[in-house]
Amino acid sequence: MESKVLDGLMRPKSIAIIGASTDPTKIGYTVVNNIIKGGYEGSIYPVNPKADEILGLKSYKSLQEIPGEVDAAVITVPSKFVLEVVDEAGKKGVKGLIIITSGFGEVGNKELEATVVAKAHEYGMRILGPNIVGTLSNSEKLNASFAPLLPLPGKGALVSQSGALLIAMDMATFTRRVGFEKLISIGNMSDVDFADLVEWLDKDETTSCITLYIEGIKDGRKFMNAAKKATKPVIALKAGVSAHGAAAAASHTGSLAGAAKVYGAAFQQAGVVQATDLGNLFDLSLALSLQPPMKGDNLVIITNGGGVGVLATDAAERFDLPLKFAPKDVQEELKKHMPVFGSAKNPVDLTGMAGYDWYHDSTKFVFSHDWADGLVVLYCETAMTEPMEIAQGIKKALDESGMLGKKPVTVSFVGGDKSEKAMQWLVENEIPAYGAPDLAVHAISALREYDRMKEIISEPEETITTANKEIALKAIKAARDDGRDSLTEIEAKQVFSAYGLPVTTTYLAKSEEDAIKLAKEIGFPIVMKIVSPDILHKSDAGGVKVNIKDEAGCRDAYKTILTNAKAYKADANIHGVAIQEMAPWGTEVILGSVNDSTFGPTMMFGLGGIFVEVLKDVTFRVAPVSKKSALRMISEIRGAPILAGVRGEAPRDRVKLSETISSYAQMIVDLSEEISESDANPVLVYEEGKGLKVADARIILKKK
Amino acid sequence: MESKVLDGLMRPKSIAIIGASTDPTKIGYTVVNNIIKGGYEGSIYPVNPKADEILGLKSYKSLQEIPGEVDAAVITVPSKFVLEVVDEAGKKGVKGLIIITSGFGEVGNKELEATVVAKAHEYGMRILGPNIVGTLSNSEKLNASFAPLLPLPGKGALVSQSGALLIAMDMATFTRRVGFEKLISIGNMSDVDFADLVEWLDKDETTSCITLYIEGIKDGRKFMNAAKKATKPVIALKAGVSAHGAAAAASHTGSLAGAAKVYGAAFQQAGVVQATDLGNLFDLSLALSLQPPMKGDNLVIITNGGGVGVLATDAAERFDLPLKFAPKDVQEELKKHMPVFGSAKNPVDLTGMAGYDWYHDSTKFVFSHDWADGLVVLYCETAMTEPMEIAQGIKKALDESGMLGKKPVTVSFVGGDKSEKAMQWLVENEIPAYGAPDLAVHAISALREYDRMKEIISEPEETITTANKEIALKAIKAARDDGRDSLTEIEAKQVFSAYGLPVTTTYLAKSEEDAIKLAKEIGFPIVMKIVSPDILHKSDAGGVKVNIKDEAGCRDAYKTILTNAKAYKADANIHGVAIQEMAPWGTEVILGSVNDSTFGPTMMFGLGGIFVEVLKDVTFRVAPVSKKSALRMISEIRGAPILAGVRGEAPRDRVKLSETISSYAQMIVDLSEEISESDANPVLVYEEGKGLKVADARIILKKK
Repeated sequence: MESKVLDGLMRPKSIAIIGASTDPTKIGYTVVNNIIKGGYEGSIYPVNPKADEILGLKSYKSLQEIPGEVDAAVITVPSKFVLEVVDEAGKKGVKGLIIITSGFGEVGNKELEATVVAKAHEYGMRILGPNIVGTLSNSEKLNASFAPLLPLPGKGALVSQSGALLIAMDMATFTRRVGFEKLISIGNMSDVDFADLVEWLDKDETTSCITLYIEGIKDGRKFMNAAKKATKPVIALKAGVSAHGAAAAASHTGSLAGAAKVYGAAFQQAGVVQATDLGNLFDLSLALSLQPPMKGDNLVIITNGGGVGVLATDAAERFDLPLKFAPKDVQEELKKHMPVFGSAKNPVDLTGMAGYDWYHDSTKFVFSHDWADGLVVLYCETAMTEPMEIAQGIKKALDESGMLGKKPVTVSFVGGDKSEKAMQWLVENEIPAYGAPDLAVHAISALREYDRMKEIISEPEETITTANKEIALKAIKAARDDGRDSLTEIEAKQVFSAYGLPVTTTYLAKSEEDAIKLAKEIGFPIVMKIVSPDILHKSDAGGVKVNIKDEAGCRDAYKTILTNAKAYKADANIHGVAIQEMAPWGTEVILGSVNDSTFGPTMMFGLGGIFVEVLKDVTFRVAPVSKKSALRMISEIRGAPILAGVRGEAPRDRVKLSETISSYAQMIVDLSEEISESDANPVLVYEEGKGLKVADARIILKKK
Repeated sequence: MESKVLDGLMRPKSIAIIGASTDPTKIGYTVVNNIIKGGYEGSIYPVNPKADEILGLKSYKSLQEIPGEVDAAVITVPSKFVLEVVDEAGKKGVKGLIIITSGFGEVGNKELEATVVAKAHEYGMRILGPNIVGTLSNSEKLNASFAPLLPLPGKGALVSQSGALLIAMDMATFTRRVGFEKLISIGNMSDVDFADLVEWLDKDETTSCITLYIEGIKDGRKFMNAAKKATKPVIALKAGVSAHGAAAAASHTGSLAGAAKVYGAAFQQAGVVQATDLGNLFDLSLALSLQPPMKGDNLVIITNGGGVGVLATDAAERFDLPLKFAPKDVQEELKKHMPVFGSAKNPVDLTGMAGYDWYHDSTKFVFSHDWADGLVVLYCETAMTEPMEIAQGIKKALDESGMLGKKPVTVSFVGGDKSEKAMQWLVENEIPAYGAPDLAVHAISALREYDRMKEIISEPEETITTANKEIALKAIKAARDDGRDSLTEIEAKQVFSAYGLPVTTTYLAKSEEDAIKLAKEIGFPIVMKIVSPDILHKSDAGGVKVNIKDEAGCRDAYKTILTNAKAYKADANIHGVAIQEMAPWGTEVILGSVNDSTFGPTMMFGLGGIFVEVLKDVTFRVAPVSKKSALRMISEIRGAPILAGVRGEAPRDRVKLSETISSYAQMIVDLSEEISESDANPVLVYEEGKGLKVADARIILKKK
């Protein structure tokens, strides 16, 4: 559905409150009272079958009785009456429903919730909720919620999946001096979800930045698409990323794919800036709602004190924006605006003597200079200088530079009440200001990170065309027909092969003679492995023999493998023995996938062996994955230099590896209805131009 | 010098201000004014040759004129007069000098500074400064500084190496609601340094916690000893840890030993809690000044909202205190104090309906229960409950539990003004309270970390007795006599060997015949390497041949190595060729050392090869290192499971490895006057009970 449809819900010209009450202990009273107090200028229609007047407003017995049009209806009646109310609202032509009432999906009442949504959709109505606090907008002067007051005005919108937190954050906007234009409680997301709101808020003129408090997204792909398309910054704080209670997994990849990693990958791919905690959510909302992205890495820090300058320099390195010295000409000009013992390098240290003029002149010069991509101005309160004057000097310089809105600036004042007031003034004048230098640096680093992500998203995506889905499905069907939900290595390699992954040649031998014949066809040396759907850990079962050099060895191995397998599991269903090309040694990597419950097919890449097992040095991407993204995966693991070539070794074939990752990702997208988890492990990567080989393969199917 | 000597300086009964002034623009005026305003109850003696009265106080022409005793003198006269003043003060019998005056070591005037200190010491006086803001104490009602006012009262002391930051933090105590008992500006540390103050503050009854803002420590060992002995928590924020401008190093270990890592190791070994940033410095000071250490890992979180509970759970994992479910009996009792849809697991979710009673009852029960080692109480402000009532319920429960002071508690309220006021009340009642759940968890995790470190420090240290320092010094002397500041591999191995490190047997062959003879003595296969002080990178020069199996091979290798060496560097001074036992393959690790300019001899340990080169997976300890500490080094690197045995491999000989680390550490302590940097790389570690071998050795000497 189009975002336009949400206008009636989010920006109503008239609003009805179903369940409006004269009893101050009822939410139906609070909501009417809040709408009045907020100063809403549209029509307000309390609806209550028993009342004539509520809080000085005419009350209506039913929706039908209301004379004019009703854009939005706030529903506060108990859950058992909601379906009836929705039907009435539909008949009245209401556009959107704000269902505050709880007692739906969150307590297991999913059927009622679905019925309510279906009914609303019959009439083309959208639902916010149920189980929400409501929605608040400063520009609409509308507090359609039971949160006590409209938030401190700001330019961003905050959407929260926790109602309690929304109320607390509403009140905290005043103590933290970080305002919001809108607060939206999203509750059960029975209909309108994060994606819908991102899409709508992106078009809303009163919103400059979209902040989300997320506990869990239902449709990860829809969310990613909406966030990717958004032209405004999207910030997310994802709660619930600890391992506390994570489920067991059947594959290597599955065991490594925690919520933190998959959400992290999805946010990055969708250009969503991730907040680290509640304070950071406010801090980033302030910066991203007021300042433009930072389009290069040249950060300049201006300070009046060594201490805060050093702390900011440390923070810049920590937040991936290490300082560089300014060019000579910049240094020379800056030298004019500080005493001889100041420093014009970076941080630019104006010394504790710096007042209005020096702050003004150096800020104006630096912010105007092409070399600077972003600026952090620090002030450490002294007994000799007035914080408000410094703030005014900074602001005037920024205005005069003509660069406000073109590159970002953040400020930090460390001090007492006077500094607090100066920072408040700066924020009111749209300059983000923070009480500690690292916070100002963290905020500007988020503006840089946002630009980097958007840059990557704008890259064209290439497509993979070598797939043969039918062959893959045939191999899967064979396992399904056999009543299995995992593929044998041979079947898994057939699937991989159908997507162009360079697997080692592998045949199934059902007898010793078979084995000899196939071994000769492949050519010695070979590898032999047990093929049994009941033996997943082949090595543990003594079911793997490598480097078999001749016919005698092959016969020997065949017997030993079968004997071992039977000893390991007497009733194992044994398909035979895989006869396999022995791939030459190469750098071991692992490719793998999970079918994430939120984001669907998701790729993992890492170095193999102990790197994955011990160091867990892996990276994720929601599939599909372009070749460029795959190259980025290859370069972002800690062990990346190993593939680039260390200790005199030749670089590995990263181009072919990136193509393989991309093809693998295409495979898990195409077969997302079938594949639950998979691993290609190890994959042996050779020198540049020499490609790679998938030596082992595992596919776990979705349970059907 | 004993800490007692500082009493006169830090807790003076009378104070003189040399350079006191009637001119309000002078520091000499400000200091007198501040001392009066602060309410100081001792005698105040302004000293000024020209004035009779300053700010209503009788002024003295000179120190000698003052009738009574003078404990401390604040010096604000220009630097050129300071030496004279110090002499006068000594004659007067002043105990301590607070030298605010700048223009000493910080601008290169080190000689003057040293002269002043020597003069003061002649009279047994101690110096705080020069180049400081002064010192402030709430319990003494003494603001002997030019910072505008005494800080908000608190229980901790803050010592700052940055004067500007001290003033700003002074003012920020009020806006952040984190008070301090004392603020001490330490400046150039010409005499009194961090160690002296830690020692003195540890005995000071009005101080419960010692917080340090450090830019650089002069004598790292002295600091560590003072911090180790302290019975009160010491917190440090170390500024200046970014790589920006780090120097080049001659060894592997040198290149890995940045300020962040060596300071981090030293803090950990000394039991110093490290603050991450300025906000964290305040947050930790609050918690560690008010609450006892957390003596176990069982953290319980009580909350009224899922949102903040989930954020706190994530934070607990991030800060190394992952939540466990409470035992059944605890859960059953808790169930009595919450609605049916609450949760008694952990976090304990009382739901948004929770008011005074539920908070009181559950807090009292949990905090009294033996299972809980620490408690975090969260409150998310609602429209239905009163923050101050909740705060009072929590405080009453804690009092009634009888466990306050025995285990720690922190609190977080998320909300507006009412929550701020409730938190302020809690802090006034000695319960640390924070505006976000992760901050409360971070604070309590620091109390846990503090206990863990103190536990380790209390372990007895064993000593190593196998060293033969004379042999080591002889090998070093050989190199020195040769005009070199690096040892050849053979010399380095002699040094290592003298400290019991199991080096591969290595002899120097000066001719082909020599080589054959020595090879036979060692037994084939052997390794041969060029020995030349001019060729440090032997492999690059084609100067290494391994796995030489017989006499012919040995002759061949001898010739090839010499030819290659000459081709590599025609004028290289070649000592000969090392004939060396070929150590069997083992797990490669690296041991190494730097002689840190602050902390002296410092050990490094890590896995070898790509682990150290690419992943930089190494850990540091200031030497000496006990065997237990060495075992901890072995277990704390990310690759630790590799030594513990992965993928079916036997565990490596970690006991012998820990002994070797410990001996190595002893060696660099004993030879700290000689050794600048060193590496044992690779060291091959074998299966348990089979020891290890140092295959290559490098020692760089201190330049003399």
